[in-house]
Amino acid sequence: MRVTIYEVGPRDGLQNEDVVVPVEVKREFIGRLAAAGLTTIEATSFVHPKWVPQLADAAELLDGLPRVPGVRYPVLVPNERGLDRALEHGVTEIAIFGSATETFARRNLNRSLDSQFEMFEPVVGRALEHGLRVRAYVSMCFADPWEGPVAPAQVVRVGRRLLDLGCYELSLGDTIGIGTPAHVTALLEAFQSEGVGPERLAVHFHDTYGQALANTLTALRMGVTTVDASTGGIGGCPYAKSATGNLATEDLVWMLDGLGIETGVDVRSLTATSLWLAGRLGRPSPSRVVQALAKEI
Amino acid sequence: MRVTIYEVGPRDGLQNEDVVVPVEVKREFIGRLAAAGLTTIEATSFVHPKWVPQLADAAELLDGLPRVPGVRYPVLVPNERGLDRALEHGVTEIAIFGSATETFARRNLNRSLDSQFEMFEPVVGRALEHGLRVRAYVSMCFADPWEGPVAPAQVVRVGRRLLDLGCYELSLGDTIGIGTPAHVTALLEAFQSEGVGPERLAVHFHDTYGQALANTLTALRMGVTTVDASTGGIGGCPYAKSATGNLATEDLVWMLDGLGIETGVDVRSLTATSLWLAGRLGRPSPSRVVQALAKEI
Repeated sequence: MRVTIYEVGPRDGLQNEDVVVPVEVKREFIGRLAAAGLTTIEATSFVHPKWVPQLADAAELLDGLPRVPGVRYPVLVPNERGLDRALEHGVTEIAIFGSATETFARRNLNRSLDSQFEMFEPVVGRALEHGLRVRAYVSMCFADPWEGPVAPAQVVRVGRRLLDLGCYELSLGDTIGIGTPAHVTALLEAFQSEGVGPERLAVHFHDTYGQALANTLTALRMGVTTVDASTGGIGGCPYAKSATGNLATEDLVWMLDGLGIETGVDVRSLTATSLWLAGRLGRPSPSRVVQALAKEI
Repeated sequence: MRVTIYEVGPRDGLQNEDVVVPVEVKREFIGRLAAAGLTTIEATSFVHPKWVPQLADAAELLDGLPRVPGVRYPVLVPNERGLDRALEHGVTEIAIFGSATETFARRNLNRSLDSQFEMFEPVVGRALEHGLRVRAYVSMCFADPWEGPVAPAQVVRVGRRLLDLGCYELSLGDTIGIGTPAHVTALLEAFQSEGVGPERLAVHFHDTYGQALANTLTALRMGVTTVDASTGGIGGCPYAKSATGNLATEDLVWMLDGLGIETGVDVRSLTATSLWLAGRLGRPSPSRVVQALAKEI
């Protein structure tokens, strides 16, 4: 068995760190991730710098990225203006960021749940015309801070519409990290019963309540083979209450190595990168594996 | 379904913290754990104070413990002298601490793997004569720092001999925390194939590499219903390389609550206790749930 790790550290991770790191550090970070064996690395986002100053250097970063055979650099694109810029800079894969709940759609996208699709439709349509692949994040799939638990059927409705636009994959996000394995099972079963199998689904867990790996294991057992993770566990979630955010890629690889599941990724190389990056971010990595291996690297 | 949480914080946790907390703090800690709904709380150990100064007050602690209906306070007993003291102080349940590997037996018990049973035999025999229940820890069930991975068959041989002495349960410990779900499955299957079912087994995972909850989930799916955990995740392992030690009881309860598995334990009450204890220990709890809930408690 093989699992594809969709690395989100350079985008989702750095976007949610207080420190803005220079473009040279980002470039070295991404180069190190590729050298460690990661093949899908979400590099940055064309969100307006007013909202995400951490990624204001998206164009400059992309222009200087090392092109490595077999390594893909998808980029998050919020709207048509972002798509224009992505196309100008040679991007071949994009991701859009939708919401599973009404309240988060209004707070994060300034749209109603329904009208988010009007925003995405021309983005996805034009991207497909240009031959790009489009992934869709679905955030707050398990609960959101305002509405509480989210019904699987609601997530499936949102996901179905994103797939119908032409997205090749949904990344199901537990944005505040409160989900547990039973909820994962219920959500994946709800998708399956509507004809969306695990080959169209990725999982995106946050470790805020320590549940990310148990949830990932559950998804793997149900056939999911793409898992989002952030090297070093960098990034938090501005809507969650803890500094702990994304599942750390190292903790994921440790488990997959133990399960005999191939990823092509070297956990010690990633750990060395996280230790290096921690110096730039000014805070230690929250990854358990990074902390445990720190003394031998 | 119901899971019994075997709480090890007051013994395994405090034993491995640098700070020695006063007996009054231990008594309040244990009282709070019982009030939060824990029913099996390993209170202390009759190990010689030269080896474990943190628990030198075992007798004084036990004499002043609140007796709560339905709450059991097992005590770790290394040898006959320890058993004598346990009996003097009204203990009704003990635990012994064995090794699955030759090297750890020599380093921790100053015995060969085989001769550890000569030490345990009179302890267990006399304890049973006095009507005590005896649990057996099996440490280093997955790997040890000197010998590397440990074969399941070797753990089963050690465990079988401990059960034959009259122990009612084995607690299978991943003392350095490197195990993953595949190894858990292999170990539990090896026991099953030798006639030792999950009703005789407990699991004791360390979160050093972030794997504890995924491993626990795997054990639950295989029928194990007793799980060791330490409130706040306190305690490390002197043989592991990280400050992160035992699985935090809060992280475990969060998952079990989500799975609809009853424990009788209130996670917010435990979290409040961990925040209080962190002040006494002088370091923040490594539990993800404690960190996440800290701002709302």
